[in-house]
Amino acid sequence: MSPSSASPLLVVGSVGLDTVETRAGKRADVLGGAASYFSVAASFLAPVRLTGIVGTDFPEAHTQLFGAHAVDLAGLERVPGKTFRWSGVYAQDFSTRTTLDTQLNVFSDFRPKLPPAWTDSPYVFLANIDPVLQLSVLEQAEKGGGVGSLPRFVACDTMNFWIEGKRADLLKLLKRVDMLLLNDEEARQLSGEANLPAAARAIRALGPRAVVIKRGDAGALLFHEGGVFAAPAFPIENVVDPTGAGDSFGGGFMGWIAREGDTSPATIRTAMILGSVLASFSVEDFSLDRFKRLDLSQIRERFAAFADLVHFEKIKI
Amino acid sequence: MSPSSASPLLVVGSVGLDTVETRAGKRADVLGGAASYFSVAASFLAPVRLTGIVGTDFPEAHTQLFGAHAVDLAGLERVPGKTFRWSGVYAQDFSTRTTLDTQLNVFSDFRPKLPPAWTDSPYVFLANIDPVLQLSVLEQAEKGGGVGSLPRFVACDTMNFWIEGKRADLLKLLKRVDMLLLNDEEARQLSGEANLPAAARAIRALGPRAVVIKRGDAGALLFHEGGVFAAPAFPIENVVDPTGAGDSFGGGFMGWIAREGDTSPATIRTAMILGSVLASFSVEDFSLDRFKRLDLSQIRERFAAFADLVHFEKIKI
Repeated sequence: MSPSSASPLLVVGSVGLDTVETRAGKRADVLGGAASYFSVAASFLAPVRLTGIVGTDFPEAHTQLFGAHAVDLAGLERVPGKTFRWSGVYAQDFSTRTTLDTQLNVFSDFRPKLPPAWTDSPYVFLANIDPVLQLSVLEQAEKGGGVGSLPRFVACDTMNFWIEGKRADLLKLLKRVDMLLLNDEEARQLSGEANLPAAARAIRALGPRAVVIKRGDAGALLFHEGGVFAAPAFPIENVVDPTGAGDSFGGGFMGWIAREGDTSPATIRTAMILGSVLASFSVEDFSLDRFKRLDLSQIRERFAAFADLVHFEKIKI
Repeated sequence: MSPSSASPLLVVGSVGLDTVETRAGKRADVLGGAASYFSVAASFLAPVRLTGIVGTDFPEAHTQLFGAHAVDLAGLERVPGKTFRWSGVYAQDFSTRTTLDTQLNVFSDFRPKLPPAWTDSPYVFLANIDPVLQLSVLEQAEKGGGVGSLPRFVACDTMNFWIEGKRADLLKLLKRVDMLLLNDEEARQLSGEANLPAAARAIRALGPRAVVIKRGDAGALLFHEGGVFAAPAFPIENVVDPTGAGDSFGGGFMGWIAREGDTSPATIRTAMILGSVLASFSVEDFSLDRFKRLDLSQIRERFAAFADLVHFEKIKI
């Protein structure tokens, strides 16, 4: 699916079963989890290595979906017990969502262990899990085959729960990653700054040379050595299910980096748009369903639509 | 100040005295009002004709500020009584503002009357006032010197108060304007649609061929015959006072249209950026103070920074 020249992209994070209700309907026990959205979104651009854990109840159909996208599941443990489950309901206008239930199940004992062959992964994404586990995966990835095999680019996500409850571990992790992706509320919470450019400045002082602040339908902002870059969200009239949009953004973003094998400011800007493109498809159906009928020509088309969305003439004033 | 080739831009709206408190400080009885922000912002790009009303207490210094920006005040009535006053306080993080006091004063009897020479104004902006008064100004502008002098482009703003309380009059007005500018909450209220592209579609069906939805620090969206255009807000780290940002946006937007004498989709997109540029300057100080030390070279520089803010390479996927 992805071009053979792309470098492998390693992701660790949750794989779960979601029960979701939105104005568009309700779905029970559908494929969910940050690493699921990330992997399949990224798979359109680069070969993905997925590290996670599921129970014996994890449906074969979901495994097949990963297979159809050539997501390597050598790092996906299957253990006795039930798969991680999340259930939530969105407000009619999608402005808020309420979590009805979270069952960690087998996820509560997750101790990620990379397959030995994966320790050479040049691109690494640590999705939103306990920063202690994120750090453990990073250390395994760094122990590959010597200095030359150190990851070239490591990005991580996080959430309010870890910012509040495991701040010291998170700060330790942040010193060692190239980029942090988080949403606006998390950026404010982590930095103590209400203003987003100020928050990004404070977060970059903690370690990551790049910070991406995701703002849902207000788009995403990138702060890095190449300045500030604003990617709008693609205006979608028929939003079906926003679950996983941020993770799909991460997948499109990191997928482009891995495909290009380059982390120059120009490539990172383009990665922001690919992230927005994949996120925009993700919300058009429940679970990962939109990705099942997505192909590269549609991605290409929406990338062009994005270019048009922000295009204006560089006139003389 | 503006190039002599630009066409005159007529605005009607409030001119007032604001008392504002933000995390950056407090100012009492400073120049405020939608038409004030609009006029001075637009004045950098086109000659402005201001229609409004003030009381005998209106300070000479404010009149001089308009004069310094060549804003024509032939339509600014001065009547016995006190000038419109508004007072408000912003939350530390600028996420909300609370109105402490509103005194309509002379504004409550405002019956706008265009100077006869102004009925030929080719570009008209009806700032947020009672839609009955907006319609009255539009009718006066349309009565100019026959068909050839009909306004070429009419835009209006509105607010929740009129959407709720004078809906029928507002709908009558909307049938006769080319463009409506409003914020996201107003767009949802007017259309009954939570989703912004859906709201814009519904509003365009009411009359205006173009709709601009202002979203504060999330930027602005334009929906018109040239498709959708997204203008990010320029990231400003030191926001001092957001009052009037939306009106300054309107001024920059209409100022560019009047300067170019053209309402093609390409010009309207560029106008969105000029609107964002003027709004971004507006919030950098209290009242209209930032405009006092603004010049065209700074506008040019920020326009270029905007181009960089959204620039990405149009690569092959």
